[in-house]
Amino acid sequence: MDSDGSSGAVRGARERLVVIGGDAAGMSAASQARRMRGPGELEIVAFERGHHSSYSACGIPYWVGGDVDGRDRLIARTPEEHRARDIDLRTRTEVTEIDVAGGRVRARDLDAGTESWTSYDKLVIATGARPLRPDMPGVDAPGVHGVQTLDDGEELIATLEGVRGRRAVVVGAGYIGVEMAEALIKRGYEVTVVNRGTEPMSTLDPDMGRLVRDAMVGMGITMVGEATVTKVLTGSDGRVRAVATEDAEYPADVVVLGIGVRPETSLARAAGLPLGADGGLLTDRAMRVRGHENIWAGGDCVEVLDLVSGQQRHIPLGTHANKHGQVIGTNAGGGYATFPGVVGTAVSKVCDLEIARTGLREKDARRAGFRFETAVIESTSRAGYYPGASAMTVKMLAERRTGRLLGVQIVGREGAGKRVDVAAVALTAGLTVEQMTGLDLGYAPPFSPVWDPVLVAARKAAAKVRDGAS
Amino acid sequence: MDSDGSSGAVRGARERLVVIGGDAAGMSAASQARRMRGPGELEIVAFERGHHSSYSACGIPYWVGGDVDGRDRLIARTPEEHRARDIDLRTRTEVTEIDVAGGRVRARDLDAGTESWTSYDKLVIATGARPLRPDMPGVDAPGVHGVQTLDDGEELIATLEGVRGRRAVVVGAGYIGVEMAEALIKRGYEVTVVNRGTEPMSTLDPDMGRLVRDAMVGMGITMVGEATVTKVLTGSDGRVRAVATEDAEYPADVVVLGIGVRPETSLARAAGLPLGADGGLLTDRAMRVRGHENIWAGGDCVEVLDLVSGQQRHIPLGTHANKHGQVIGTNAGGGYATFPGVVGTAVSKVCDLEIARTGLREKDARRAGFRFETAVIESTSRAGYYPGASAMTVKMLAERRTGRLLGVQIVGREGAGKRVDVAAVALTAGLTVEQMTGLDLGYAPPFSPVWDPVLVAARKAAAKVRDGAS
Repeated sequence: MDSDGSSGAVRGARERLVVIGGDAAGMSAASQARRMRGPGELEIVAFERGHHSSYSACGIPYWVGGDVDGRDRLIARTPEEHRARDIDLRTRTEVTEIDVAGGRVRARDLDAGTESWTSYDKLVIATGARPLRPDMPGVDAPGVHGVQTLDDGEELIATLEGVRGRRAVVVGAGYIGVEMAEALIKRGYEVTVVNRGTEPMSTLDPDMGRLVRDAMVGMGITMVGEATVTKVLTGSDGRVRAVATEDAEYPADVVVLGIGVRPETSLARAAGLPLGADGGLLTDRAMRVRGHENIWAGGDCVEVLDLVSGQQRHIPLGTHANKHGQVIGTNAGGGYATFPGVVGTAVSKVCDLEIARTGLREKDARRAGFRFETAVIESTSRAGYYPGASAMTVKMLAERRTGRLLGVQIVGREGAGKRVDVAAVALTAGLTVEQMTGLDLGYAPPFSPVWDPVLVAARKAAAKVRDGAS
Repeated sequence: MDSDGSSGAVRGARERLVVIGGDAAGMSAASQARRMRGPGELEIVAFERGHHSSYSACGIPYWVGGDVDGRDRLIARTPEEHRARDIDLRTRTEVTEIDVAGGRVRARDLDAGTESWTSYDKLVIATGARPLRPDMPGVDAPGVHGVQTLDDGEELIATLEGVRGRRAVVVGAGYIGVEMAEALIKRGYEVTVVNRGTEPMSTLDPDMGRLVRDAMVGMGITMVGEATVTKVLTGSDGRVRAVATEDAEYPADVVVLGIGVRPETSLARAAGLPLGADGGLLTDRAMRVRGHENIWAGGDCVEVLDLVSGQQRHIPLGTHANKHGQVIGTNAGGGYATFPGVVGTAVSKVCDLEIARTGLREKDARRAGFRFETAVIESTSRAGYYPGASAMTVKMLAERRTGRLLGVQIVGREGAGKRVDVAAVALTAGLTVEQMTGLDLGYAPPFSPVWDPVLVAARKAAAKVRDGAS
C-alpha cells in the first residue's frame, strides 16, 4: 500500500515524481522539474537518508581547513527551503528497494524504524557514491575519518579540535587526499600522505604527478609513494596511533581516508537496472536509465560518456551532478534536454599549487587505441616582466598524423588551473593542435604572456605532429 | 644601385628577405624565417627607424605605473641579440619607399642622413600603427604625451619625475586610457579621464561600459564622458596647464593621449598595395599581401578577418602581431602556415577591475545583419562560500533561433578576465549557447562556482533563444 494510501491510477492527472537522494543531482532535478510544472500538475517526493540536502561536498576540505566559516555555508538549500517550494523532501529516510515492475519504492524512516511503499509515475535515482573504505584492521578506530558527507566533516573537525598530537596521515593522494593535506597543514599539522602510486594525482601522467609531489614536499608534506596501507594501529585508549604499510609505520594522531569512491548502485543493481563496467548506472543522453522510459539517473551514481575516448566512465564530480539534475528535471518536467558527455576536466589545488587536467592521459589514449605525440612546455601565467608571473608546466597530447587534441595537463601556481578550460572547449569541438595555435585568447601583460601557455604547448605539439607525419 | 652593390640576379641561390619594422610582427617573422633557413640560404635585412627592437608596447603602462622595473624588462630581444642570430637589423634606419616593380626599398640612415636602395627577393611589411594625435592647439606642448613607443614611455616618466603638480588628465578611455589611468593612480596622481563616448571602453556595449565607469569612479578617478577635448591650454612657461573641452576646463600637470591608433600604411599606399576600409593592408590567410606572391604583411598595419562577422577589421594587438610574424616567417622560409583570423578577444584591467570581451557587441551584430538575444548575469569567480569569491557580470549575445554564440563581455574582479577564453574557443568552433551549457569546464570551490559564470550566462541565453523561437 502507498504510504499516503493513493496510487498512480487513482491520483488522476496529477503525476508523482519520486527522487532518491537529496544532494546535487537529485535536488537539482526536483527543483528544475518544479520550475517546469507546478504542484497542481506534479507532486515531487524526495528521499534522503542523511540530515542535509543540496550541499557542497567539494567544499568540505575548505571547511575543515578553516577557509570556510561553518557547515551551513556549504548548504546551498536547506530541506525547509525545498519544502517551501512544494518539494516533499523526507530526510533521514532511506530507500531500501526499487520495485520497477510495480512503479514504487520502499523507504525506511531511520528514526522511527518504520517502512512504507511510495508509488511513482517518474523516478529519479541520485544515490551518489560511497567512499572506498579499506577492509583492514583498525579502520574503524576513533581518529580515522572519511570526508564524504557533512556529518563526516563535522566528526573530523571534532576530532581535530579534541586531539592533542599534531601528526596527520592522509591515505590516498587524489583530489580529496591533496585537498585534505592542505586543510591539515592550515590547521598546523605535520602531514604525511601515503599512496599506492609512484606519484600523487594519478589522474595526471606520472611526469606531471612528479611535479605535484615535488611541490608538496616543498610545502613540508611527507610524501610516501608506492605504499599500501595494511592496517591502522591503535593505542591503549583504542584510538589510532599509527598507520602501517608493508614496510613502515607512520605515527598518526588523526587519519583521513581519501581513496576514492564507487557508484552507490546497490538499489539499482537489485532492481535489475543496467550498470556499466565501473558499476555506474547507464543512461541515454537525456539521462534516462537505458530501457526505462520513466526512470532517470544522474550524479555520482551514473557513468558518463567520455567524448574523447568514446567510452563510458565513472567521473564523480559536483559540476556534472548539477548538470545532470538540470537535464533530468527538464525532461521529467516534460521538456527536452540532453547531457552530451564529458571531456574529463578537473581542477584542484594544494596550497598555492594548481593542478588541472582534461581529456586523456597517455595510458587512457593507449587504451583507447590512439597513437599520439606529447609536448611538455614551461611558461608563465603573466608576461614574464609583470609582477606575480608564476611558472607553469603544460603537457599536451595530440593524435599522430591528424593532430587532433587528445588531452592537456597543467601544473603551476596562480592562474594555471582554469587555463585548462580552453583545452576543454577545444576537445569538445574536436580541434587539432594546429588549429589551436591560432586561437584568439585574451592577452594583456597582467593576464598572459603574448603567447598564452596553452598556445605555446599547441605550437610544440603541432610541430611534433608535423615531424611525426613526415 | 643596391646599398651593398649586389642584386637578386647576381646573388645566385642565396635569397634576401627584407623586413620593414623591427617590432613584434617583423622580428618574429625574421626569427622564424631564420629558424627555417640558415644564413647560407637566406640573407635577412630588417629596417627599424627607432632605437629598439622586439619590445612589448603593451607593457608600457605597467612600466610607467612602476609595476615593471625599467625599460629593458620590456625588451624581448635586443638588436644585438638579433644580429647574433644572423639577422642584419639596422636601427635608426627608416624605409622611405617601396619599389614593388623593382623589388627594392629605399632607406634613410636617420643619423647619417644618407639614403640607399636595398633589393629584396621577399619582403615583409610590419610598419605597425601610428597613434591618433588630435590636430588641436597645444597638443605638442611639454607635458602632453603619447604612450606608443619605448621612447614615449621614457619621456613620460621623465615628465612625471620632474613635474610638481599631481593632476593628470587622460584623453581617451579605451585600453590605453584605462591602463594609463591605473598607472597614474599608482604614481599618486589625481586622475581625470575624458572621453567622447557616454561610457568608457567603447569596445564593450554601453551597459557593460557603465560598470567600468562606476568601478573607476569608485577608485577615485574623475570620469568625464560625452566630452571632446578641443585644446590644450599652456601656462606662461609653455607647459600644459589644463585640457579644455567645449564646456569645461580640467587642470592638468600632465596629459596622456590614449585615443587609439591607425594602421601605418603610407609606404604601402604609395606603393599601390591593397588597403581595406580601415586603412590596413589586405592579405590572404598566409599573410601574403593580396596579389603579391613575394610580399607579406602582419601586425598592426594589416586588417584581419573577423571570423564571427566575416568582415575585415583593424585590431592592433601584440598577440596577433606575434602570430602573424610566426606565420610569415614560416611561409617566407619556404614552409606553410596560415593565420585563420580573429574573434575579437581582448582583456584589460584598471587596478583590480578586469575587463574582457570577445566576438560581437550589439552594434557589431546589428551591422553584420544578425538578429540576436542577449543575456546578462551576475555570478562569482569562486564558490560563493570560498574566500576571495568576487562578483562578475557576464553578458552574452546569441543569434536568434540558431542560438549560435555571437559574443561575450565580462566585467569583474580577480578571475573574471581570462574566463573570456572559453567563449573565444566556442566562437572559433561555432558552438551554440545551448551546446555551451554542457561544456565540461574545470570546477573546484577555489576556482569556480559549481556552474561557471560563463555557463550561467549560456543557460540564460539558451533559455532566451528557446523563448524567442516559440
